[in-house]
Amino acid sequence: MEKKYSYSELADFTNAIFLKMGCPPDQAARATGVLLSADLRGIDSHGIARLTGYVRLWEAGRVIADPAISITHETPSTAVVDGGSGLGLVVAPAAMQIAIQKAKQVGTGWVSVGNSNHFGIAACHTLMAVKEDMIGIAMTNASALVAPTFSIERMLGTNPICVAIPAGEEPAFVADLATTTAANGKLEILQRKNEQAPEGWIQTASGGSSRDPHELKRGGALLPLGGDREHGSHKGYALGSVVDIFSAVLSGANYGPWVPPFPAFVPMPEGMPGKGIGHFFGAMRIDAFRKADEFKSHMDNWIRRFRNAKPVSPQQSVLIPGDPEREMEAERSKNGIPLLTAVTDDLKALGEKMRVKWP
Amino acid sequence: MEKKYSYSELADFTNAIFLKMGCPPDQAARATGVLLSADLRGIDSHGIARLTGYVRLWEAGRVIADPAISITHETPSTAVVDGGSGLGLVVAPAAMQIAIQKAKQVGTGWVSVGNSNHFGIAACHTLMAVKEDMIGIAMTNASALVAPTFSIERMLGTNPICVAIPAGEEPAFVADLATTTAANGKLEILQRKNEQAPEGWIQTASGGSSRDPHELKRGGALLPLGGDREHGSHKGYALGSVVDIFSAVLSGANYGPWVPPFPAFVPMPEGMPGKGIGHFFGAMRIDAFRKADEFKSHMDNWIRRFRNAKPVSPQQSVLIPGDPEREMEAERSKNGIPLLTAVTDDLKALGEKMRVKWP
Repeated sequence: MEKKYSYSELADFTNAIFLKMGCPPDQAARATGVLLSADLRGIDSHGIARLTGYVRLWEAGRVIADPAISITHETPSTAVVDGGSGLGLVVAPAAMQIAIQKAKQVGTGWVSVGNSNHFGIAACHTLMAVKEDMIGIAMTNASALVAPTFSIERMLGTNPICVAIPAGEEPAFVADLATTTAANGKLEILQRKNEQAPEGWIQTASGGSSRDPHELKRGGALLPLGGDREHGSHKGYALGSVVDIFSAVLSGANYGPWVPPFPAFVPMPEGMPGKGIGHFFGAMRIDAFRKADEFKSHMDNWIRRFRNAKPVSPQQSVLIPGDPEREMEAERSKNGIPLLTAVTDDLKALGEKMRVKWP
Repeated sequence: MEKKYSYSELADFTNAIFLKMGCPPDQAARATGVLLSADLRGIDSHGIARLTGYVRLWEAGRVIADPAISITHETPSTAVVDGGSGLGLVVAPAAMQIAIQKAKQVGTGWVSVGNSNHFGIAACHTLMAVKEDMIGIAMTNASALVAPTFSIERMLGTNPICVAIPAGEEPAFVADLATTTAANGKLEILQRKNEQAPEGWIQTASGGSSRDPHELKRGGALLPLGGDREHGSHKGYALGSVVDIFSAVLSGANYGPWVPPFPAFVPMPEGMPGKGIGHFFGAMRIDAFRKADEFKSHMDNWIRRFRNAKPVSPQQSVLIPGDPEREMEAERSKNGIPLLTAVTDDLKALGEKMRVKWP
């Protein structure tokens, strides 16, 4: 059961909730834009369905609505940012803006962020760089759901990597991927549909094979991209580890099994070595390498050649990373964003509590 | 059938071959060190077994023994390097050195390289940065063997990504991974052993499943990390694409299906849009983010926590990326490097042709 809402209906509601939390108006607007970009792009697990979760973190004192975001260390091409325990939805664009400014000065900018919270979808932040004719990179760690190869212990988050690359006449290349076989949002969808997961997504608490999307509640774990050792799970584990180290060991955030959980009711891990969760951002000016128009014309050539690669089946042509999300954004901007009844019920209750009218 | 040789025996032979090609002595020594680091670390497909291949590229005029390596464009944190059609084994360390110098100046350095050739193993180059208390990053494109998700056409190389991160008392974290389910070297091993590949490594020319390690000779393709769409092959395809674009579209090298093949007898692709193959290097000073000793002590904590993650089986503890190769290097440095008879026969013939004595 679902109903469609226009972007502006959902944006007005979300913005009003952030204002009630005490976010300054510019930050409320920014957080709204980041959060709803997920709904527009079809990443429903990271959009307005999480709004209640952010409010609960604020109620628990884990999110500060008007954070003091500061640079604690920097060089011409790098910075470490303390997110002031703010919404990642606000901290992340601020940090990406610093990376972009540094790239304007010296060619590239690299910012590691600590003391932050969940930042929405990574693609939204990298696209800020694309607008400036830069390659944008964003990653974040997250609370541990993933077992390393040969382990039964949840040690890493789904730790996404996003790389967005500008083109000329073609739309930008946008790769945005969890470093697991499947993102946690995919499991949530299977849970709602009461369906089984494919082999290779999940393991049981003792490391056995499982297709039950509820397996994590019994101590199971998500698997790194690759699935098992024979199919390269050590590569997914290595990539998720790099995201964790760049995001948190460089910045002073928590890493590995110590990353704070998103649900406010879950107790914090013991012996945390840092502050909050961590992100990492990069911006590389394309003309720091090559004339921008030359680069873009070769990107157009790259994209067209790959789009025209011989398909397995004539019914499904080869996609360029970012194609499905961009098409979804066009469709939903026009026809509205569908929300499940469970999500709207939750948001209506939130609206009543915060005295904000639900559309 | 194999026989062991000491590192110095193989190094003397390799160095003499590079000198006979006309490499300047310092470059011959550097190329030797890079090439044999693969044999030491157990990546036998990228070591001395390829020496004859490099010589054939030189004979075919595709490798210049004394290349003019030059910076064609730069900013304080970036450079584009023209490899002068030199051995990648020489061009890559020169480019990484430029990245390191830039990182010393402005915190990070990023170098995209065109007009180059095969650069050996990526880990060897990233470890140059680790010695300077920097994070090292290296990637390279390669000739097309991999079909994108939904395609039957070989469009990407096995395009590896390597990230090396210094620690304190613990050895460095070194993730070095092809962006495919399995590297091509793994297929070569199966071919020699006359064994089948696991499902999910290879597809047939029409996109069907195959376990035959000779499938590529009949028009088949390697599969991106993830294997199939359901297990995230679109992620491996996206990662391999990022490597291709950073290495070649930024630098002016060839990309996608136009990357020149390693075997000198294979004809060059038609309509090549650039020069040679491309690489990409990064160096990030750790103290550009955080005091180096603080970072290293947290890296030690990260490594120890992951090494002690609960194992599935007490017989196999959790590994840190780089562990197997480091252990292999210690063992082979002490006990020698085993070479298959097929490899030594090939090298003996090379030695006779070039008038260099085989050990």
